[in-house]
Amino acid sequence: MNFETILGSVDFLEFLRGKKATFLLSASVTKTCEIPNISQAGIPGKLYLTPTLDAEFLCTKQVRSMPDIAQTPKGVPTPALITRAVYELKPYSNIEVLNLGLEVLPQINYFKIHNFNIKPSGRIDDGAKIPALEVFQKGIEFGQSYQTSDDYVILAESIPAGTTTANATAKALSYECEGYFSSSYKDNPSDIKNQTIEKALKRVDLNGDLFEILSSVSDNMIIFNAGFILGSRANNLKIVLAGGTQMAAVLLVVNSVLRSMDGVIDSSNLALSTTKWINKDENSNIKALLEQLDFSINAYASDFDFSLSNHPALKLYDQGEAKEGVGCGGALCYATINGITKEELTKKIESFLG
Amino acid sequence: MNFETILGSVDFLEFLRGKKATFLLSASVTKTCEIPNISQAGIPGKLYLTPTLDAEFLCTKQVRSMPDIAQTPKGVPTPALITRAVYELKPYSNIEVLNLGLEVLPQINYFKIHNFNIKPSGRIDDGAKIPALEVFQKGIEFGQSYQTSDDYVILAESIPAGTTTANATAKALSYECEGYFSSSYKDNPSDIKNQTIEKALKRVDLNGDLFEILSSVSDNMIIFNAGFILGSRANNLKIVLAGGTQMAAVLLVVNSVLRSMDGVIDSSNLALSTTKWINKDENSNIKALLEQLDFSINAYASDFDFSLSNHPALKLYDQGEAKEGVGCGGALCYATINGITKEELTKKIESFLG
Repeated sequence: MNFETILGSVDFLEFLRGKKATFLLSASVTKTCEIPNISQAGIPGKLYLTPTLDAEFLCTKQVRSMPDIAQTPKGVPTPALITRAVYELKPYSNIEVLNLGLEVLPQINYFKIHNFNIKPSGRIDDGAKIPALEVFQKGIEFGQSYQTSDDYVILAESIPAGTTTANATAKALSYECEGYFSSSYKDNPSDIKNQTIEKALKRVDLNGDLFEILSSVSDNMIIFNAGFILGSRANNLKIVLAGGTQMAAVLLVVNSVLRSMDGVIDSSNLALSTTKWINKDENSNIKALLEQLDFSINAYASDFDFSLSNHPALKLYDQGEAKEGVGCGGALCYATINGITKEELTKKIESFLG
Repeated sequence: MNFETILGSVDFLEFLRGKKATFLLSASVTKTCEIPNISQAGIPGKLYLTPTLDAEFLCTKQVRSMPDIAQTPKGVPTPALITRAVYELKPYSNIEVLNLGLEVLPQINYFKIHNFNIKPSGRIDDGAKIPALEVFQKGIEFGQSYQTSDDYVILAESIPAGTTTANATAKALSYECEGYFSSSYKDNPSDIKNQTIEKALKRVDLNGDLFEILSSVSDNMIIFNAGFILGSRANNLKIVLAGGTQMAAVLLVVNSVLRSMDGVIDSSNLALSTTKWINKDENSNIKALLEQLDFSINAYASDFDFSLSNHPALKLYDQGEAKEGVGCGGALCYATINGITKEELTKKIESFLG
């Protein structure tokens, strides 16, 4: 296993080789996921459960708030399988869950769940009604106070319909987005998504206040983590943003906040790590998103794929389904810099599916 | 490699994945081991050396106080092989020895040996003459003052004839024991053991003082560690009791102490981890022992066996010999949550036997 450098240099990830990581899962619900067919990240009608089940599975290998692990209608298993498999082969020192507006709390003990009194956000086609400044400030404060004895943090997300809200966020903030945003679908349901984004954008004054825009078109995961990143610069916390275009949107929000206050950021201890499926995706372009940042950013993609597997559900990943989520891109890069082989990882993931 | 949950939930052990452990070996001698054929944990006539040799081998891969590593007459090698192999593949952060009454001090440097001025205890068929309250209080004090920079402690034992004293202890404290206690023999020499236990129990007033009973029928390992567990609740130290029915007896003593003083315990940071050979043993029942506790307890069993080995001495384990000891059940669960594979562990253990 290896990784490719999308932007920046290999040094940051190379430096983290063999070092200790805390895995932070940002688990959040946007009711945007209730729009029919907008996301395949979970059980239709019960997508609000996906982040809860992902947290449970990642920590315990069990899904407790539902009888079966989240599978999409076509049977694409959650990328939590990959993140969990890496955890079993070379454990992160620590897993903590950030409750950024869950409908249902994960049923897990011992693992820390950080609660911020954040509620699930609304549908963006109906005005998301997020107290954006408040959520952002909670992120700032968490970043300023967060301490770890580990060497770095892998920051992941699980939020169904999150690519739609990420796309809406970036577009509302006037970034070039056309064809740049990914989807958990192989065949991106761009009509539904675009209609939703257009409806969302129509409701806001795009020249208005940044946080008012975010209140209407974004999600808690993006807003909180933009604050978390900025707040944690005080401690120079090393953060690997584990995700694809949604994590790129987090960085774009950081960028817009800095622009609005003529601020600068030392981004040398930040990176983004994603999957090959995102990196090679013809229907999105993470590099083009990241190149719009005013600051430099290291970005990497794992070269892991399921070419060593014959399992039909896993093969769907190589055909373009799912692609990213639950920090699997970051987990795969972590696997690489900790000596896990493609063979053993493939075998471990397969062992979960029976 | 994986583990099975005997009681409680997976969360405690899952939370410890990848975390740092100190390995504490309780090394002790009860002269009960001098009763012919009562134990096969060592060299006949020299069983008192077994905990010394186990400590030496675990720490240094050498046996120094005897020319050869402890082998039973049938050639069942000590489970210290397993615990050592895990240590080589994924080292415990620290090994410390608790001298709970050794005849011969292990010849090891650097590794900390905690001395408590505890003498080997007598044969229980002759009244063990243990200063039980004093030993218990030493355990309490050690638990209250014990500090570690690691995340948890694996508490193991090496005490030949320890299943006999454990069985006598539980029976004297009026727990249901019939057929529940294990033996290092495949064919449990129940006549000798039962005669010994009966002789021991006849000498004591079973309605008398708890510590008077323990003084006569128990051993230093059990009494001290019951105190250690209770004392360490002050710091909420996470402890994995690494062992089978002997460690269950430690918990039963904790239970009796609590009953005698109308006390309660927060047992959420305690667990027991044992081997598949104990978990699947038809001649004992660790679950039935643990279910008699008034408090809840997490209990796990590794699924490791020697099915990948052709070594005749190791195959004896799969036939029911030895089963547990020197914390090998806890070491195997530690191996699982630290990504060690069955293949590499089997190979490592085989490498010790040549």
